[in-house]
Amino acid sequence: MQALYFDAEARLVQVPRPEPGEGEALIRVILAGICQTDVYLTRGYKAFRGILGHEFVGRVEAAADPTWLGQRVVGEINIGCGHCGLCRQGLSRHCRDRRVLGIQDWDGALAEYLVLPLANLHPVPERLPDALAVFTEPVAAALEVLEQVHIRPDSRVLVLGDGKLGLLLALCLRLTGCDLHLAGRHAKKLDLVASRGVTTHWAEHFTADGFDVVVEATGSLAGWQTAVAAVRPRGTIILKSTYPGAMEYNPSDLVVREVTVAGSRCGPFAPALRLLSRRLVNPRRLISRVYPLSRAVEALDFAGQQGVLKVLVEMAVDG
Amino acid sequence: MQALYFDAEARLVQVPRPEPGEGEALIRVILAGICQTDVYLTRGYKAFRGILGHEFVGRVEAAADPTWLGQRVVGEINIGCGHCGLCRQGLSRHCRDRRVLGIQDWDGALAEYLVLPLANLHPVPERLPDALAVFTEPVAAALEVLEQVHIRPDSRVLVLGDGKLGLLLALCLRLTGCDLHLAGRHAKKLDLVASRGVTTHWAEHFTADGFDVVVEATGSLAGWQTAVAAVRPRGTIILKSTYPGAMEYNPSDLVVREVTVAGSRCGPFAPALRLLSRRLVNPRRLISRVYPLSRAVEALDFAGQQGVLKVLVEMAVDG
Repeated sequence: MQALYFDAEARLVQVPRPEPGEGEALIRVILAGICQTDVYLTRGYKAFRGILGHEFVGRVEAAADPTWLGQRVVGEINIGCGHCGLCRQGLSRHCRDRRVLGIQDWDGALAEYLVLPLANLHPVPERLPDALAVFTEPVAAALEVLEQVHIRPDSRVLVLGDGKLGLLLALCLRLTGCDLHLAGRHAKKLDLVASRGVTTHWAEHFTADGFDVVVEATGSLAGWQTAVAAVRPRGTIILKSTYPGAMEYNPSDLVVREVTVAGSRCGPFAPALRLLSRRLVNPRRLISRVYPLSRAVEALDFAGQQGVLKVLVEMAVDG
Repeated sequence: MQALYFDAEARLVQVPRPEPGEGEALIRVILAGICQTDVYLTRGYKAFRGILGHEFVGRVEAAADPTWLGQRVVGEINIGCGHCGLCRQGLSRHCRDRRVLGIQDWDGALAEYLVLPLANLHPVPERLPDALAVFTEPVAAALEVLEQVHIRPDSRVLVLGDGKLGLLLALCLRLTGCDLHLAGRHAKKLDLVASRGVTTHWAEHFTADGFDVVVEATGSLAGWQTAVAAVRPRGTIILKSTYPGAMEYNPSDLVVREVTVAGSRCGPFAPALRLLSRRLVNPRRLISRVYPLSRAVEALDFAGQQGVLKVLVEMAVDG
């Protein structure tokens, strides 16, 4: 099969179709998404070698349990050891020995086929088209914020960053009814959420404060500094992005103002599928371009360019 | 009246007895405690000038509302503006224009008399002796942790630091039934809580991890580093101490492991009084020495020495 393989550089290769192990399914990929993490991986993050991609929708072609055969599915990306305390508590996404689809020791979705444990799969409702189902993983990551902090209808909430994740966060968080603000640096991206009732700001000139919750999705020192200045005493900062390096900071201000800072990563798939199916979250306008798998290297380059939103890769119907 | 006044240096002075304003009480101080913050204030923290001290028990001598007259009281230390959004939400301790007893724009408790708003006062139950009532403020600060994070009977919890605050935290948190650990650097202090069922560790050799909650009460970079290494994925770090300077840190690990970090400061007085009254929290063995007010400068010096726990200052009965 064809796959986008990374090993010092990303290139299209022919590799054997993967063989599902016990409890696993072979999935023919229909559509895959490129995430900022994929771009970072090709720049050396995590020293990953293998097939890239962790956002996908596909169809089960082989599985020990025949009820899965032919089902259209999306899949959770963490594969825990299944034995440790964290896995037994249902926190396999935090298992120390976890493998992660297309990110860590597990071949990813930018290929004609992939393998995942059946336990990771979620059937896709019929009314949810592939182009929206492929957003399940990033929408779940956005919803993780609502798993971690109670955003009330009367809350004042600020999202920092108008990248893919910042915009998906805005699309999810506006459903709470909260007074939602987003600060970014791209007029076109800000327009995408301004048209849906989100108050948008230019990050350069942003000075508002008193926010109950600030979601930092820029992964930059400037974003962190804005978050600290914007959050109210006893408020919460959610960190959605990783940071390229260390920052210098005295946390005394967090102590005196009793601010909570919570890291946030992968989220729950079932509610993401519910919201996408009902079009309560509709990220269709976030799609910048769709490439065929044969042009996946180009797709990855394009996804890494400033201002580009979601890039999708479509697998050829007949391989 | 006599008072311990700070202005470049701490010295005993004669000043006029304060006059209570509208809604305020004049309180004759019986016993006051010296906190680490008082020591820091004399080293330049917050550029405070005035009478030091914010831990006290005293008796109301004058108040517009006669039901308070003669009552033995303790008092909350933050005086909000009363008008802003935070004050109206009951968060006057986070009011931006707040004054703080003996810490910020309000004369403190290391004096024969002090003034506080009646709204700040809590009557002391008769069965609670002065030597324990004077711990209400720091016990409340320790209980703030339980206001912020749900420590379950089955939680594994680590307190870092065997100073006064670390030990009070241990005395409070052990009441949850949790598996409680404390790491410190002083055998005598560790013994104080080891004898009450807390598992103690030498901070230098501490390597355990997987804690649900870590309470950082050292205010040091080493403490922060230990906290980050000891907390489990999705666990919580509570910062109870302020830090003397900035630290370099990349928060990506907090994001990936979804760790929550919460600053924590002043806490609720009513439960502190309940627990002290019932001797469920009994910090009597934390008292290192009691000085008369006439020797308050010496008391402050002694309180700043390594290894010293709580130093109390007793006001002379006839001033």
